[in-house]
Amino acid sequence: MTVRITGVDVHDVRFPTAAAGDGSDAINKGDYSATYVEVTTDAGVTGSGLTFTNGRGNELTCAAVEALAHHVTGRTVEEIAADQVGFWRSITADVQLRWLGPEKGVIHMASGALINAVWDLRARLAGKPMWRYLAEMPAGELVASIDFRHISDAITPGEAREILEKGTIGYAERLAELERDGFPAYTTSVGWLGYPDDKVRDLTRQAVADGWRAVKMKTGGPLEDDVRRAGIIRGELPDGALLMMDSNQVWDVDQAIAAMAELKAFDPYWIEEPTHADDVLGHARIARAVAPVRVATGEVAANRVIFKQLLQAGAIGVCQVDACRVAGVNEVLSILLLAAKFGVPVCPHSGGVGLCEYVQHLAIFDFLRVGRSLDGRMIEYVDHLHEHFTDPVTVADGRYRLPLLPGYSVEMKPESIAEFRFPDGPAWR
Amino acid sequence: MTVRITGVDVHDVRFPTAAAGDGSDAINKGDYSATYVEVTTDAGVTGSGLTFTNGRGNELTCAAVEALAHHVTGRTVEEIAADQVGFWRSITADVQLRWLGPEKGVIHMASGALINAVWDLRARLAGKPMWRYLAEMPAGELVASIDFRHISDAITPGEAREILEKGTIGYAERLAELERDGFPAYTTSVGWLGYPDDKVRDLTRQAVADGWRAVKMKTGGPLEDDVRRAGIIRGELPDGALLMMDSNQVWDVDQAIAAMAELKAFDPYWIEEPTHADDVLGHARIARAVAPVRVATGEVAANRVIFKQLLQAGAIGVCQVDACRVAGVNEVLSILLLAAKFGVPVCPHSGGVGLCEYVQHLAIFDFLRVGRSLDGRMIEYVDHLHEHFTDPVTVADGRYRLPLLPGYSVEMKPESIAEFRFPDGPAWR
Repeated sequence: MTVRITGVDVHDVRFPTAAAGDGSDAINKGDYSATYVEVTTDAGVTGSGLTFTNGRGNELTCAAVEALAHHVTGRTVEEIAADQVGFWRSITADVQLRWLGPEKGVIHMASGALINAVWDLRARLAGKPMWRYLAEMPAGELVASIDFRHISDAITPGEAREILEKGTIGYAERLAELERDGFPAYTTSVGWLGYPDDKVRDLTRQAVADGWRAVKMKTGGPLEDDVRRAGIIRGELPDGALLMMDSNQVWDVDQAIAAMAELKAFDPYWIEEPTHADDVLGHARIARAVAPVRVATGEVAANRVIFKQLLQAGAIGVCQVDACRVAGVNEVLSILLLAAKFGVPVCPHSGGVGLCEYVQHLAIFDFLRVGRSLDGRMIEYVDHLHEHFTDPVTVADGRYRLPLLPGYSVEMKPESIAEFRFPDGPAWR
Repeated sequence: MTVRITGVDVHDVRFPTAAAGDGSDAINKGDYSATYVEVTTDAGVTGSGLTFTNGRGNELTCAAVEALAHHVTGRTVEEIAADQVGFWRSITADVQLRWLGPEKGVIHMASGALINAVWDLRARLAGKPMWRYLAEMPAGELVASIDFRHISDAITPGEAREILEKGTIGYAERLAELERDGFPAYTTSVGWLGYPDDKVRDLTRQAVADGWRAVKMKTGGPLEDDVRRAGIIRGELPDGALLMMDSNQVWDVDQAIAAMAELKAFDPYWIEEPTHADDVLGHARIARAVAPVRVATGEVAANRVIFKQLLQAGAIGVCQVDACRVAGVNEVLSILLLAAKFGVPVCPHSGGVGLCEYVQHLAIFDFLRVGRSLDGRMIEYVDHLHEHFTDPVTVADGRYRLPLLPGYSVEMKPESIAEFRFPDGPAWR
C-alpha cells in the first residue's frame, strides 16, 4: 500500500509561562511555544512533529515550515524511506533556503519539525512507538538514514554500521531492564533563576521525597546568588545525589573557569552551557580547567558539525542533543553515533514543551542499539505542559516509563491547540 | 537636536537571477534578494540597511525584522549612540528571540539589516560616508560599540583600543593613497558553475582586458571539471595574476585536502569555503594540509564567536567577513579587530546584491584604522545589480574608488523596490 502525503499544516501554539518565572534562566525568559506540524495523508493517518521555541518569533519557524513544505507534500512514504538522504537534503540543502542557515537557527529548527512529523507518520504506520521502530530497524537502514556529508572525517558509514550491529547483542536483556525499571531521569524544576530561595528549598525537598536523586539548578546569575542557592539545594539532597548546574551560555570562557572554581565546593556533576554555544574551543578549555566536573552542552548546538567538533576537541563529557533543534531523527542518529564513537554519554536536552515526550524515545533507542549502557545516562525532566499531549510521558520515582503507543509522542490535543493558538486562541485574546 | 526613530519599514525585494546561472555555485542557485529596511525619523532623514538572501525565504528575514523592530522604534539616535552595547544586545539577546539563533541564521541576519540601517542613519546625520564616519571616530567610542562578551578570551577592550589608537598614526598618508589609487579588488564574475567553458574563457579574457589581475572561480563540481576550468582561466591570466578558488562548503574535510592536491597545479592564491562553514577544526586541518595555499572563509560564518575560533585555531589565512550576515557594524568591528590581533588580512565577502556597496566602507575603514596595510587585501567585486542603488560602487582598473556620499551606500532606488518587490512587483507578476 502506497501512502502519499497530501498536505502540511502548521500551528503557532504558545503557552504563557514567562509570567510565572518558569523556565527563567540566565539568558531566556520565555513563553514556551511550539511550531506544531501535522502531515496529512491519503491513508487517513497523520504524522505530528514540532519544534520548541521561546515565545515571540514562533511565527518565524512556522513560516519556515511553510517555505519548506513543498519538499514534503505529494511525496509517498515509500519513496522517502527508499531515499532518506535525498529527502533530508531536499529540505536541509535547498539551493535557496540553505543560505538562511546554513543548517542552523530558524530554518533548521523548522526542518526538524517537518522531518520529525514524517518520522512520526512512519512509526504510526508501522504501529510502533518511535524507540521501538528505530531499535528494530536493520543497521543498514539506519545507516542509510544518515547524511555523512561533513562528518565523514569523524565517523564513516562502516563504523556507524558496526556500532549498530553490536547493538543487537544483548538487546533483549536491555529492553527487559527498561521495561522493569524505566529509564533514569533528573529534574530541572527545582532551581529556575526566577524562583525565590524558599521556593527552591521547598521544591528540592519535595523532589527528594518524590524519589529524585539527580537535580539541576540554574547558575549564571550573580556568583554569590549561585553559591547561596547551590548551598540550599545541596543541603537538601541526600548523600550521593547528583547536582547539575546550567549557566545557559552567560559566561565568558575565563569567567566560567573562575566561577566553577567556587561552585565546585558543591560537587557539581556537570556544568552545562558554561559559555556561548558556538564556542567549541572555549568549551574545550573550560573542560580541561574544571575536570573532573564534566562540561555538558547541546540544547542549542546547531547541527551535527558542531557536535562532531565538540567530540573531536574533547570539549564535552555529556552530549545533550535536542530532538528538534537539529533536523530531526536523521541528524539525531548521526549525533548518537558520533557520541558513541567518542565514548561520551548522551543525556538529551528536554523541558520546554513536548521535549520530554520526544527525547525519551531517543534515549531509549540509544541505550538499546547505540550506547548500550545506562552509566551516566539520564533524561532531563521538567514537570510542565505534559497535559497538552495525547500520549504524555509517565515518570515515577525519578524514572521514565517506556512509552507504548505508536509514534513519536508529540501529538497535541486539538483542544490545547485551539486554546493556545497564537494570536487568536482564547488564552491570548 | 534629538532625532527620534519613528518607524521601521521592511521590503521583500528579489531579483530573478537564478535563470541566468549568475551566482550559481556548488551549493546555491539563487535569486539574489534583499531584506531591505528603512528606519524613519522625526527629522525627515531616513537610514537604510539590508541583508542579502538567496531568493525563497526572504520573507523569513523580513518577518524577523518586524519581530525585532520594537527594539528600535521610539528610540533616539543619541540614546543609541550613548549605549551601543545595550542597544545591540536588546536586539541580539532578546530573551525570547535569542532562542531562534542564538546569534545565527535568520534572526541574526535580520539584526544585521536593522542595526546597519541605524548606522546608516547616524552617518547621514553626520554628513559622512560610513568609512569616514568610522575612521574619524575616537578609539574609545569605537571600543564602546563592541560587545566583548564571548570574545574576551581572545581580545580585550584594552587591546582593541590600542590597535585603534595605532590606527591614527599615518592615517593621512593612507587616506591619500586610497584617494589616489582606490582600493584593490578582485572579480568573481568569470567562473560561476552555471557558465559553459566558452563563456568562462571569454569572461576571463575580458576581465584581463579590463585591468583585473585577481579573479575567482567556483570549484566543488566534479573534480575533472574544476581542473579543466582552472586550466582555462589560468591560461588566460597574465603572469603574476591571482586565481582564487571557492567551493562553497561542498567538500568533506578529507575530500577538500585531496581535491586541493590536484588543484594546486594552478597555483591558487586561496581556497574559499573548502568545507562546512561551522567546521573550525576541519578548516584548521585543511589549512595545515594545503599550505602555502591560504584557507579563506566567512560569508556564512555566523558570528564573532566563530571568527574568534577560526583565528585561534589558525584555520584561516584570509578573513572574509560579510557586512550583514553578522549583526551589523558593531559586530563587524569586533571581527576586524580580532583579525588584526591575529595578523590575518580581511578581504570581505561581497557580490549578491548590495554587498559591494556595503563592504567597500568596511575594507577602507580597516585599512585606515585597523589593519593599516593593503598587503593581501582585496574587496570582492561582482558586476551585478549595482544599478538599483542611489550610490553604486565605482570600480575602475580593478580597484574600488572611494564612495563620497553620506551613509552606507545601500539605499535602493524607489523604482527598483517597486519593480522587484516580491510577490507583487511587475518583475514577479
